Amino acid sequence: MRITIDVTPRDFAALKESIKNSNPVDIAEGLEELDDQQAVKYFRMLPKDTAAEVFAYLSSGMQQNIVDAIKDFEISHIIDELFVDDAVDFIEEMPAGVVKRVLSNLPADKRDIINNFLKYPEGSAGSIMTIEYVDLKEHLTVAEAFDRIRRDGVDKETIYTCYVIDTARRLLGAVSVKTLLLSSLNDRIGDIMDRDIIFASTSEDKEGITNDFRKYGLLAMPVVDNENRLVGIVTVDDVLEVQEEEATEDFEIMAAMSPSDEPYMKTSIWKLSKNRILWLMLLMLTATITGSIIGGFEDALAVMPVLVTFIPMLMDTGGNAGSQSSTLVIRGIALEEIETSDILKVWWKELRVSVICGGALAIVNFGRILIMNRSASIGFSVSLALLVTVVLSKSVGCLLPLFARKCKLDPAVMAAPVITTIVDAGALLVFFGIAKAVFHI
Amino acid sequence: MRITIDVTPRDFAALKESIKNSNPVDIAEGLEELDDQQAVKYFRMLPKDTAAEVFAYLSSGMQQNIVDAIKDFEISHIIDELFVDDAVDFIEEMPAGVVKRVLSNLPADKRDIINNFLKYPEGSAGSIMTIEYVDLKEHLTVAEAFDRIRRDGVDKETIYTCYVIDTARRLLGAVSVKTLLLSSLNDRIGDIMDRDIIFASTSEDKEGITNDFRKYGLLAMPVVDNENRLVGIVTVDDVLEVQEEEATEDFEIMAAMSPSDEPYMKTSIWKLSKNRILWLMLLMLTATITGSIIGGFEDALAVMPVLVTFIPMLMDTGGNAGSQSSTLVIRGIALEEIETSDILKVWWKELRVSVICGGALAIVNFGRILIMNRSASIGFSVSLALLVTVVLSKSVGCLLPLFARKCKLDPAVMAAPVITTIVDAGALLVFFGIAKAVFHI
Repeated sequence: MRITIDVTPRDFAALKESIKNSNPVDIAEGLEELDDQQAVKYFRMLPKDTAAEVFAYLSSGMQQNIVDAIKDFEISHIIDELFVDDAVDFIEEMPAGVVKRVLSNLPADKRDIINNFLKYPEGSAGSIMTIEYVDLKEHLTVAEAFDRIRRDGVDKETIYTCYVIDTARRLLGAVSVKTLLLSSLNDRIGDIMDRDIIFASTSEDKEGITNDFRKYGLLAMPVVDNENRLVGIVTVDDVLEVQEEEATEDFEIMAAMSPSDEPYMKTSIWKLSKNRILWLMLLMLTATITGSIIGGFEDALAVMPVLVTFIPMLMDTGGNAGSQSSTLVIRGIALEEIETSDILKVWWKELRVSVICGGALAIVNFGRILIMNRSASIGFSVSLALLVTVVLSKSVGCLLPLFARKCKLDPAVMAAPVITTIVDAGALLVFFGIAKAVFHI
Repeated sequence: MRITIDVTPRDFAALKESIKNSNPVDIAEGLEELDDQQAVKYFRMLPKDTAAEVFAYLSSGMQQNIVDAIKDFEISHIIDELFVDDAVDFIEEMPAGVVKRVLSNLPADKRDIINNFLKYPEGSAGSIMTIEYVDLKEHLTVAEAFDRIRRDGVDKETIYTCYVIDTARRLLGAVSVKTLLLSSLNDRIGDIMDRDIIFASTSEDKEGITNDFRKYGLLAMPVVDNENRLVGIVTVDDVLEVQEEEATEDFEIMAAMSPSDEPYMKTSIWKLSKNRILWLMLLMLTATITGSIIGGFEDALAVMPVLVTFIPMLMDTGGNAGSQSSTLVIRGIALEEIETSDILKVWWKELRVSVICGGALAIVNFGRILIMNRSASIGFSVSLALLVTVVLSKSVGCLLPLFARKCKLDPAVMAAPVITTIVDAGALLVFFGIAKAVFHI
């Protein structure tokens, strides 16, 4: 489905033809592969209505490149044609100078709407909603509703769910086009609309909205203000993107990086480095604490140097066991399957799982040491330390994300890297404690 | 939006009223919180058409509980009412005895369809599609299309995109209800339909389909067989779920667990343990190799016991640096932002990022050792080892997922736990190699 734009001038006609039959998404993708100047050249050849649609799908880098290169009245046309949510997304990514230039070239009413939308906090329903919906009144008939959809529908982001409001714009219900089509033309909207609808307030978190879309299989969700007035809708295509972005963000945070919404291949090495270096630094410095714990047991190691060979296995297993638990809990919290009130249930579950896993690992480990080191007492000490480490790690792994959530922090921070660093120290203290007791060193 | 079902008998009337106004998703959620017997009792009180819908949203455990408790003809009614994709999902989770009983009680045509759908491989478009779509012929007028939608639409999973097929059921195009509504009633479907549509074949991977839905903002996608005949559609509500499940699966695999599609709170401790123990065991045994590497440098450690205190910092930093890279690459592959052909570009990017990150860490680390250990030569050795470790880790971290992909393995396996174990050994070899050279031990 990919369009490759041929950039030889003699192909203008062919290009125009190929654009006519192409999806705006594919045209945008084709433009991204050209250099900046050529992309602008081809962008300006697009028919006006296609141009705005293609613009919405471009990366913010390419959007800025185009805005920098074209005339003010052209910008004004494109931004005015965009759905409000796309216009807001675009403006949020632009430097202040560009924003000023764009806004000052818009019609006053559109500028006011965009300025209002820019005030909604990042991650809220308000920040991802749009205003291109169809609203109906209770007293309309189905026939009148169809007239209204035919008249206004062409510029709406969805017409398949229409929202019913009163004269004060308060949300009363919703009616789907399917219901309209299956009703008689004389039915009143107020009689056929669904009053039990799922809606969001502007300040609601977009992650919760995503979960509601998935749970109820929604195509759109109305968004209301504090007075229950309809101010916008969120559509499923945006939710699909939000869900992907939220997961990617968690993947990145859980791997000790600052999240970024640029695709990897388009991110500069400076940005990539910046996103990684702070966490690496912090974790490196914390890990030196673990090092000094080993330093404190230098005497024991001098007597039994073999002990040092078990350190990587204990540290790695502890880290792995802990991050298994933290991953499940973090994901469970994100999907609203685990609540902070479940903390004791989760802990009890993890305690039993950790005894089963730790026990099995300890037995295998004991066997291996018996064969390779031929010492039951070493085998016993290491295996006991292993069991305690696994139990400890899984407790830390399941509890920390829930504590983070309780403190209104992002649970995803409490993932493998942080858990590993904490658990390392615990594993070593347990190990040397047991070894000292068993071998009287 | 949650319904709490009151289980005192005198509230039957209230219950019926509350059910009448409730979303089937909420009723299903309410039933899940009852014990098995009560859930069956309340399920049987549901109106027939609600029952099938509620059934589709129940967990497979509760579905089996209900099927075990009710009569054959009741089952047959429910399964026949389900959309085919929900029926197939249900049957795939049931034990053989239940499947036999359910299928033998279905009408022959429905049984044949379900049997056919059961043959599509897991994770393919065929396995998530359904057959409840509206198909149209080219020669129909818009008015005739509306008649057809009004007649057949009530039982369709979506009516908003209708698919146009020829007499051999080959897919010709699609037309949205929006286009129908905005066209004149006399227009021919063949003239207004969109011929440039995005479709999938039955064997296509569902992850790629999810990416297409997100990229093109689709509500539904037609699925065709080898002869380009329309055999089903995938709808966006299922894609929202697939996208969530794929991410969850990757989170679990990347944390060294066998993936599970049950929610955490509903998974037994035996299942949880089983999903974790094999990977823990494998990684534990691999980590003993790292231990024996330290063992090989016992002489060096005997001369300079302080060296051991740097091991946790080197191992942890290597693991963190590597898993940052592997996480970004794994996620990039899943979202189709990174292709295996990008391997050299990615490596070159990671090499530069690793020199920047590793360099910064080495400088800070050198300063810390100078202050705390008062030895420039120790500081130099450890910091050089740190830099090499970070470069090595990021290379391993970015290359292994791409190699896995090339070998048709799941790149998510090459995440933090595997990378850490590999990188640990490398870090120690580098460290002791440098230390031996610097200190002539």
